[in-house]
Amino acid sequence: MLKHTEIKDLVKLSLQEGETRPVTVKGWVRTKRGNKHVAFIALNDGTCVQSLQVVAELQTEEKPDGFGDELMKKITTGACLCVEGNLVKSMGKGQNVEIQARNIVVYGEANPDTYPLQKKGHSLEFLREIAHLRPRTNTFGCVLRLRHAMAYALHQFYHERGFVYLHTPIITGSDCEGAGEMFQVTTLDLDKLPKTPEGSVDFSKDFFGKSTKLTVSGQLEGELGAMALSKIYTFGPTFRAENSNTPRHLAEFWMNEPEMAFYEIEDNMDLAEDFLKHLTSYALENCMDDLKFLNDMYDKSLIERLEHVQKMTFERITYTTAVDVLKAANAKFEYPVEWGVDLQSEHERFLVEHHYKKPVIITDYPKEIKSFYMKQNADGKTVRGMDVLFPQIGEIIGGSQREEDLDKLLNRIHELNMPEQAYWWYLDTRRFGTAPHSGFGLGFERLLLFITGMTNIRDVIPFPRYPQNAEF
Amino acid sequence: MLKHTEIKDLVKLSLQEGETRPVTVKGWVRTKRGNKHVAFIALNDGTCVQSLQVVAELQTEEKPDGFGDELMKKITTGACLCVEGNLVKSMGKGQNVEIQARNIVVYGEANPDTYPLQKKGHSLEFLREIAHLRPRTNTFGCVLRLRHAMAYALHQFYHERGFVYLHTPIITGSDCEGAGEMFQVTTLDLDKLPKTPEGSVDFSKDFFGKSTKLTVSGQLEGELGAMALSKIYTFGPTFRAENSNTPRHLAEFWMNEPEMAFYEIEDNMDLAEDFLKHLTSYALENCMDDLKFLNDMYDKSLIERLEHVQKMTFERITYTTAVDVLKAANAKFEYPVEWGVDLQSEHERFLVEHHYKKPVIITDYPKEIKSFYMKQNADGKTVRGMDVLFPQIGEIIGGSQREEDLDKLLNRIHELNMPEQAYWWYLDTRRFGTAPHSGFGLGFERLLLFITGMTNIRDVIPFPRYPQNAEF
Repeated sequence: MLKHTEIKDLVKLSLQEGETRPVTVKGWVRTKRGNKHVAFIALNDGTCVQSLQVVAELQTEEKPDGFGDELMKKITTGACLCVEGNLVKSMGKGQNVEIQARNIVVYGEANPDTYPLQKKGHSLEFLREIAHLRPRTNTFGCVLRLRHAMAYALHQFYHERGFVYLHTPIITGSDCEGAGEMFQVTTLDLDKLPKTPEGSVDFSKDFFGKSTKLTVSGQLEGELGAMALSKIYTFGPTFRAENSNTPRHLAEFWMNEPEMAFYEIEDNMDLAEDFLKHLTSYALENCMDDLKFLNDMYDKSLIERLEHVQKMTFERITYTTAVDVLKAANAKFEYPVEWGVDLQSEHERFLVEHHYKKPVIITDYPKEIKSFYMKQNADGKTVRGMDVLFPQIGEIIGGSQREEDLDKLLNRIHELNMPEQAYWWYLDTRRFGTAPHSGFGLGFERLLLFITGMTNIRDVIPFPRYPQNAEF
Repeated sequence: MLKHTEIKDLVKLSLQEGETRPVTVKGWVRTKRGNKHVAFIALNDGTCVQSLQVVAELQTEEKPDGFGDELMKKITTGACLCVEGNLVKSMGKGQNVEIQARNIVVYGEANPDTYPLQKKGHSLEFLREIAHLRPRTNTFGCVLRLRHAMAYALHQFYHERGFVYLHTPIITGSDCEGAGEMFQVTTLDLDKLPKTPEGSVDFSKDFFGKSTKLTVSGQLEGELGAMALSKIYTFGPTFRAENSNTPRHLAEFWMNEPEMAFYEIEDNMDLAEDFLKHLTSYALENCMDDLKFLNDMYDKSLIERLEHVQKMTFERITYTTAVDVLKAANAKFEYPVEWGVDLQSEHERFLVEHHYKKPVIITDYPKEIKSFYMKQNADGKTVRGMDVLFPQIGEIIGGSQREEDLDKLLNRIHELNMPEQAYWWYLDTRRFGTAPHSGFGLGFERLLLFITGMTNIRDVIPFPRYPQNAEF
């Protein structure tokens, strides 16, 4: 049935002068220009950033069988066409081939008075308001194809290394994941909330028989998987109900969390470095046209930066060394550095962009600024956390070796006044057949900021969710 | 750092008699048996269904350097070990190789009095209650590895065909997807709900400035993607708040929805058939050990059924033909069949298992029993829906060609008294550059029931969510 050819399979062809190839293409009009005799239509089907030039000879006295006015009026920016014709070598600049139209069917018009995506450039802010149409622009075509490529490369990376993709739950009954504010999930009728005798909401009447939230991380469940299958990874949506209107926060975003039994912190660092290099190489090897477009339009150092990261051996330092370097630095920081404080973005960027001039992995943080589950070092002060810092992005990966000792983990839980009972299933992994293990989390949109050069996280996810916005 | 070998890379090796290979393996004890002189420990690391036999010579008067009592007491079912030794050809039945232990480190013990997974078989019901530990059983190891394999094969299938993986939103502001009851998502304080002057809940104070729900389908957003990028697919969690305690319903499950511009219903059927055959072939070619285990333990016709489906050309019939066949059938149905009624599971199974004896695709359903967005046929009565029916499972895929004509779509929306305004962005795809397009949805857990032979959908997802259950 299908008998059209995708534009990505045509634009790279090299034809000889005089060689013709009959083809049918389908896509959306990007631009139309021309004169009384001929129209040049740029047709794009979203399979690549390039448009294919359609040459349509117009009806004139000398050419009575040319394309007529009535049809040509319907061919405006945004219209959807099916074009049959001959593919030939193009004499135009910047394109290998073009199609000489023999027959054009207009599937759908796009009224120039109301279609929002006219020829002129649009601001990214405006395009966010029409996120249902912005995938039709070159910019979002590139971003979404790169998003696909990175997701595919991610699955490929883990699959080839024997990891099992584990779907951890989105709806969670434990509001103790500790990574931020959470969304409530309920089927209770908010206009008629059932109450307990004490007057609070009676969640025993809710769908799950208790209060439930949207997950902020699949790590704890991921550890359950790793302690059975050896190596697992998650890749799915996660949620933060923080009221942050910044270019770096989303209420709904995708996260990847590998978790590996028998991996110690060094193995974890090796995996993270291999992983980020694999993703970067994949983009450079498979998506160069899209990268070039974004490099030219948004960030002239994008490709150079990707190549740099891909070649470099990441610097590995402890938090203590990082603090020493920062204190000795001849630089002015807004936030002063002292051993024990959390590093700020300015510090991270100084280390990566000015001092080491390459990605940096920092390990062995003070236990007070890291999560309860990180493996405690013998010094009693630090834990085996690890953050991978990237140029421009800052922290792109955060991970750790996990505390596998039940008593040490329980002590930390008690020190932090956390509800031990809520973690019964998590603690069971330490109670029964515990083992050294490690893992990390990659914010997928953070990665995409790095890969695409975009600067607002709302522009690297198809339909962003943030305060006051859940349209589409 | 890492220097152990995964058990899946050892169990298939063929060694000569007398040949030895030094190896280190890590994993969990499944069973231990033996006598005064030697212990045989079955060690499994979750990378394959097979366990590796560890042979440990015990300390005796004749063998003073054998493994001592103190160590051996810690080696019980569920304990985690690191074993160094020599891999040799095994004289035992059912295994190629075994490891003669030289050194054993116990990473984690598992108290036999409290560890729930003892040697004896456990019911699937019991294992559901300890879903945090059940991945350590052979059954759930097989199921989870197959789940991974099917997810990977899915991505591979679409990627190779040029589809873009589109992450459609989980939190949705439109409660009009029309596929069932939905979960409310909110950050409002349920104990102090803000009210409008009229006394209803004031969702303008909620996180997104309006009432939001968990998605039941990414299709409508998927169509936005297809009308820009040509071919997209979604793969992510979806939600139904139906209070159904059946072996076929989950509150949270994974769905795959491809959507293709320029595909008509026949192309859609071709894609669905290729897709299901690809998945089935992938399982048969890459997961035979896991399939064999499930075939032997749960469903003796599993592999035969997979091979049958993979070889067969699916039968393609219209709904009208299906009704004719059912009416002419010499079979007793609980629900009588008349043109216009929705087919029941008993009818679907009759067609697939008794009449055609192969998968069946039914198309052109009465418009009254199908969704508003399906393309209307010229007869005014039927729409271009398509359901793919499988043996044992019933409907495994549901899809359609979509109505691309704005006026026809609007008419149907009005006929059904749906709120047109809520669909403004969806209707824009028909308003601007509309085109023929099609797509379908695959319930991933339905597929896994077919692939694994399991009969309860709660057993093919790691941490099932259903009424009264959101544990782990």
